[in-house]
Amino acid sequence: MKRTLIKETPQLVGQTVTLKGWVNVRRDHGKIVFIDLRDRTGLVQVVLVPELAKDFHTEDVIAITGIVKQRPEKLVNPNIETGTIEVEAKETELFSKAAELPFDMGKETLEVELPTLLDYRSLTLRHPKVQAIFKVQAVVIDAFRKALQAKDFLEFQAPSIISAVPEGGAEVFRVKYFDHEAYLSQSPQLYKSLLVTAFERVFSVNHIYRAEPSVTTRHLTESTSLDAEFGFIESWEEVQEMEEYVVRFIFDEVNSRCAKELALYNATIPLISEKIPVIKLRDAQEIIFQRTGRDVRAEKDLAPEDEREICAWAKEEKDSDLVFVSHFLTKKKPFYVHPDPADPTYAYSVDLLCRGVEWSSGGQRLSDYQTIVNNVHEWGLSEKGIALYLQAFKYGSPRLGGFALGAERITMHILGLKNIREATMFPRDMERIDVRLSTLE
Amino acid sequence: MKRTLIKETPQLVGQTVTLKGWVNVRRDHGKIVFIDLRDRTGLVQVVLVPELAKDFHTEDVIAITGIVKQRPEKLVNPNIETGTIEVEAKETELFSKAAELPFDMGKETLEVELPTLLDYRSLTLRHPKVQAIFKVQAVVIDAFRKALQAKDFLEFQAPSIISAVPEGGAEVFRVKYFDHEAYLSQSPQLYKSLLVTAFERVFSVNHIYRAEPSVTTRHLTESTSLDAEFGFIESWEEVQEMEEYVVRFIFDEVNSRCAKELALYNATIPLISEKIPVIKLRDAQEIIFQRTGRDVRAEKDLAPEDEREICAWAKEEKDSDLVFVSHFLTKKKPFYVHPDPADPTYAYSVDLLCRGVEWSSGGQRLSDYQTIVNNVHEWGLSEKGIALYLQAFKYGSPRLGGFALGAERITMHILGLKNIREATMFPRDMERIDVRLSTLE
Repeated sequence: MKRTLIKETPQLVGQTVTLKGWVNVRRDHGKIVFIDLRDRTGLVQVVLVPELAKDFHTEDVIAITGIVKQRPEKLVNPNIETGTIEVEAKETELFSKAAELPFDMGKETLEVELPTLLDYRSLTLRHPKVQAIFKVQAVVIDAFRKALQAKDFLEFQAPSIISAVPEGGAEVFRVKYFDHEAYLSQSPQLYKSLLVTAFERVFSVNHIYRAEPSVTTRHLTESTSLDAEFGFIESWEEVQEMEEYVVRFIFDEVNSRCAKELALYNATIPLISEKIPVIKLRDAQEIIFQRTGRDVRAEKDLAPEDEREICAWAKEEKDSDLVFVSHFLTKKKPFYVHPDPADPTYAYSVDLLCRGVEWSSGGQRLSDYQTIVNNVHEWGLSEKGIALYLQAFKYGSPRLGGFALGAERITMHILGLKNIREATMFPRDMERIDVRLSTLE
Repeated sequence: MKRTLIKETPQLVGQTVTLKGWVNVRRDHGKIVFIDLRDRTGLVQVVLVPELAKDFHTEDVIAITGIVKQRPEKLVNPNIETGTIEVEAKETELFSKAAELPFDMGKETLEVELPTLLDYRSLTLRHPKVQAIFKVQAVVIDAFRKALQAKDFLEFQAPSIISAVPEGGAEVFRVKYFDHEAYLSQSPQLYKSLLVTAFERVFSVNHIYRAEPSVTTRHLTESTSLDAEFGFIESWEEVQEMEEYVVRFIFDEVNSRCAKELALYNATIPLISEKIPVIKLRDAQEIIFQRTGRDVRAEKDLAPEDEREICAWAKEEKDSDLVFVSHFLTKKKPFYVHPDPADPTYAYSVDLLCRGVEWSSGGQRLSDYQTIVNNVHEWGLSEKGIALYLQAFKYGSPRLGGFALGAERITMHILGLKNIREATMFPRDMERIDVRLSTLE
């Protein structure tokens, strides 16, 4: 019989349907058995006699043919979308038997520690609350693309294998590339900039790699970067405004497409006031000093506690979970950063912070060929291996800028997850690539 | 003044506009100079007096403020979208000076050999006909995603760094991963299959890596794979039907969104008859024997000339540029391939060929845990490193299948390009990562 999806059942009262999916929970009540069946569209309660329920248990893959029945008012379950009905089974079939489970998959929240969550990734990804994370992430990524397509940005494929590490070799993965050494890209920055000199507006959803030599809650060795770059800007503020537009677009899409998923986490989209506040580094540091007495005014960057404090300020004073911080120190930024001519100590760079943590960095880039070449030397770098990047500016470029957002970090903060590994299907770190690396020895 | 995009100019006759872009071509005619200005939306002819045209030359980035004028009927240029108008310059500004060009960028077709095309990639990507390739490619990729989103597939991020090479170590890139050895993924196959046991339907646009030890016209070391996999199939034919739907969807999108780009290449979308023919390997070989006298009936696979011949047959007999070939030899396929129970020598595998070349491979996969484990051993592989994949099936799985398409290969064949490098912004091969590797030594 043709398969009916679980979400369709409330509209099919009185009809016979065949459902296919996983046993989410089984409850035995003597002469009657309840099975919550799960498919990609949701959960539904099935009522069976013990003969039909056989020895089905959690994660068995089964088919159930039965009649959709309206539930009496007092038995309606408001927590699931199909809560107004249940299915009375007439026939069942086993597709695939699941081994005995290592932990209870039937609870509303999966109560396992992070190492177990990841050791059993193929299993834990089936839990509805875990699945919600990756539905939100897919919408974040899709919304990023849609926002930029609507502004005439061209999608491109940023390569992972690169031949040189212009910004220094720390934390870079090395690849044996035939008789050569190659590297894994830490950022598509140079590619997206050079492409602006050809296509004006480009974006990319790409993987970046960082040989982070410690295990933190914020870092992965492979992560998903959402990159945008565009030309013919009048000022660095246009970069900040474009990013604000993109972030709003993402929030709107998540809000409208992920209501169910947000509800599972009691999560709310970060608050944006009419305009995200923009504040210079030095002004941010002055505010932190005024608020806390900690004198960070001569520091070259914001420490994690400073990020939290300036976000607290934005929330209290500007009614915003997000805040842009601009004008970081030119010398602390990469060679392509555009200094502010009014005071070249500071740069046209702009970071976006949300709920206490950096979400993205961006800004205006240098576009004058000779200035770029001079900086490459001043920063102590080699022109080798960035030949295509330099070539782009040699042959004429508009003023340009851009930004990059981390897909996992956005997902993590929208849902209030504690560790970025939870927001990654297959997180990689120093100790793990799917399995613990120690188990492979 | 606010920037006007070039494509908007035909609607602005009589108005003063400011255009910003690149000098595509300059033609001097004594007291009058013509500049074809290029921006991301197209080309327009600008008329200038020599004083305003200064020494502007090809690829200089400039702004022009001027009046949009209707052209007399006999001077209309049907080859460009703005051919009914021209812009009479009143003011010009230089943004960025381009160095002298190494070759003529002003011709309709860029007349350079492949090595030059790639050595000057930042420049050659500016040529309108080269840009068309990547506009088509972006639409191919976007259409792939849209097709599957419409069928309720979840997008996921397939990792590039993997810990083991279950299908054998040939042509795999090795990564120094802290104190371990890791690898670059040759296919997200195991990830997409295991995800089906959680999400039912998944797709991914991802990069795959192959240490191809020779330089061919068809292979890259890093390429873009369009992967789909789904569960609760009744038969392998559903996989083939889903792929046919996706390919049709891609063709429809390219047709409707890339008319201009197709025209530049005199290209037509591959012909699909009402239904793409599906033929078993052994039947295809019989046809080849009948048509050519070459007896390939005992061969274990199709050679390139066989692929061309069976495509010729499909074109002549079935009016189709595409043809599916199914039932390859089980033992020539990976361990997860599903044998045909009617004759397990042959598998539920199905390749898609187009215009003489393989576009994709796919089929039904094994879903029974014990059978998979047995095959892992029979194929002489190790369970280590594919722990998550095995775990997925241990805990219950629907019948599943899927397919993978190469984004560059589709782009190449739609436009009739000779070499896959032309269909890749930054092609990587044994000898090149952006620059020739020999130049880095």
